[in-house]
Amino acid sequence: MTDSEFDIIQHYFCASKRLPRKDVLLSVGDDCAITEHRENQRIAITTDTMVENTHFLPDIRPADLAYKAAATNLSDLAAMGAEPAWFSLALILPKIDHQWLTEFSHSFFDVLDHYNVDLIGGDTTKGDHLSITITAQGVVPKGKALCRHSAKAGDWIYVSGFLGDSAGGLSLLLQTKSAVTKFENADCQYLVKRHLRPTPRVLLGFELAVSSLANAAIDISDGFAADLGHILQRSQCSAVIDLEKLPISQSLINVFGKVQAEKFALSGGEDYELCFTVSELNRAKLERALTHIGVNYTCVGQLRPQRSYHKKTILFKRNGEQVELDCNLGFDHFKVG
Amino acid sequence: MTDSEFDIIQHYFCASKRLPRKDVLLSVGDDCAITEHRENQRIAITTDTMVENTHFLPDIRPADLAYKAAATNLSDLAAMGAEPAWFSLALILPKIDHQWLTEFSHSFFDVLDHYNVDLIGGDTTKGDHLSITITAQGVVPKGKALCRHSAKAGDWIYVSGFLGDSAGGLSLLLQTKSAVTKFENADCQYLVKRHLRPTPRVLLGFELAVSSLANAAIDISDGFAADLGHILQRSQCSAVIDLEKLPISQSLINVFGKVQAEKFALSGGEDYELCFTVSELNRAKLERALTHIGVNYTCVGQLRPQRSYHKKTILFKRNGEQVELDCNLGFDHFKVG
Repeated sequence: MTDSEFDIIQHYFCASKRLPRKDVLLSVGDDCAITEHRENQRIAITTDTMVENTHFLPDIRPADLAYKAAATNLSDLAAMGAEPAWFSLALILPKIDHQWLTEFSHSFFDVLDHYNVDLIGGDTTKGDHLSITITAQGVVPKGKALCRHSAKAGDWIYVSGFLGDSAGGLSLLLQTKSAVTKFENADCQYLVKRHLRPTPRVLLGFELAVSSLANAAIDISDGFAADLGHILQRSQCSAVIDLEKLPISQSLINVFGKVQAEKFALSGGEDYELCFTVSELNRAKLERALTHIGVNYTCVGQLRPQRSYHKKTILFKRNGEQVELDCNLGFDHFKVG
Repeated sequence: MTDSEFDIIQHYFCASKRLPRKDVLLSVGDDCAITEHRENQRIAITTDTMVENTHFLPDIRPADLAYKAAATNLSDLAAMGAEPAWFSLALILPKIDHQWLTEFSHSFFDVLDHYNVDLIGGDTTKGDHLSITITAQGVVPKGKALCRHSAKAGDWIYVSGFLGDSAGGLSLLLQTKSAVTKFENADCQYLVKRHLRPTPRVLLGFELAVSSLANAAIDISDGFAADLGHILQRSQCSAVIDLEKLPISQSLINVFGKVQAEKFALSGGEDYELCFTVSELNRAKLERALTHIGVNYTCVGQLRPQRSYHKKTILFKRNGEQVELDCNLGFDHFKVG
């Protein structure tokens, strides 16, 4: 669809209402975009793909899909402490549906405009199944990026927001086999909204990075235990987690009960909250620094030296007593509950 | 395939034999890659998607596919005069085929290593049809990028290499409905190779940019007439093309005859040669500057002021006489001949 590709891009994807960013010297419409950057900036780059039937139900609203595709990439930038800047969008479309493209592009630019991001390029291609690949770029001050490999034994483990809500929402949608089901129950509505419209913790990540108060961070996309596991592996640490401290919403407990809610909190994916580690020395400063961010955060455990004699890297405790849980595996999209 | 995704990336896509680039501070394995850059550099960014049955035949060799996916993106960087630097790779795979992944990744890193490019991230996802999206980034000195909008009336129009060979090769493969057909005829072998293994004109683009000798450039991916049309539209010019000057290989003429060979040269896509425009003042300097590049180049016409009274922006001449051709439309993948 060479010609119509050009028309689609012109019509739908040159539509931001904002003034373009000053650091974008050339945007959509040439062989490449051209960007510039300040001396002490580093660039954070991430790529995420969402595929029909693997990452979203086929009947998902285009506005929800566009929001989530943008939000998941913003979340990766947030996990590095980067300020979002430039997106490239590759769309594979089974057909040209103008109503769909209108809703998708409006929602997409709503998110980009909110975070002051420019769409600087991409590709629109015909294919049998809908998929969306975004390469997102952000800027982070030199030496400030939050990495997975720099956590230290003794660090306290924090998470933002609530855990498991998104997996709860997905589970409800999967029961109906539709992404557009309207639930009457307010708890269900909340959980579905957390699944379809997760909040990327951009401001939190940026504050953690520029304040230099966190040693490591990751966003919770595969489930808390799996993503914490990435920090542990890269930082050569183990962890103790206090299960009773996991931040679980009352809605999740109301709908699924305490046992299932805790399972979702530990291994349900797509919460897009941040997990970050903070030294004892920085705890008080951190709590002061985050007061104006407007995001809940909870200390759920502590890092320990790597335990080579024990294959499990996360030790779970409930009220001080060690408990055995099998939730170190990652979240598998669409195999929840 | 969350877990196996991690395994695939670890096993196949952390495989460069080169030392990593010094400007990549953090590569595959965190939420984002982190890159740095020099004060006077600008970054060129492009995204291209290739989808099974739209851009390549299903039986294409994985090594050919990896080469071509990398080369098409390198070609976009070349068209801006950028030096290739960092690639992100998003793969949608219908199944995990280790033989396929081995061949694909080896070929992919062969190209990246040749051009000193680091793979800095990406995503591997399950989906019904194979597709490859690459976001490629390069660096270009401040103020030197070759754009489509900066051509001037009076500029001479140059193209590198031969035109139409790739479309000829594709036409041969489509006749056999296979991308692995072995032809006995040497001309056919050459044409198929130009289709499967086009040469991105990276050094030529870089030389054109740093020497400031070209006013505008584009890579020929949609066909010469269509891509020249993009320069004309963005630069508000028209053009006169001398048909007898089009660089057409003897192989293309031998296999398809002169008439069809010229059609391929004008509107066949995927040559990945560069089309660039040069002022009268810079012609002699250009020809000197390009002697060491090792790429043929041909002057095929000249830019004229925009002709608002005439809807066609390209005037074709043969031996000085105007001729009517209908080849201003873009190349449609898989609808050749």
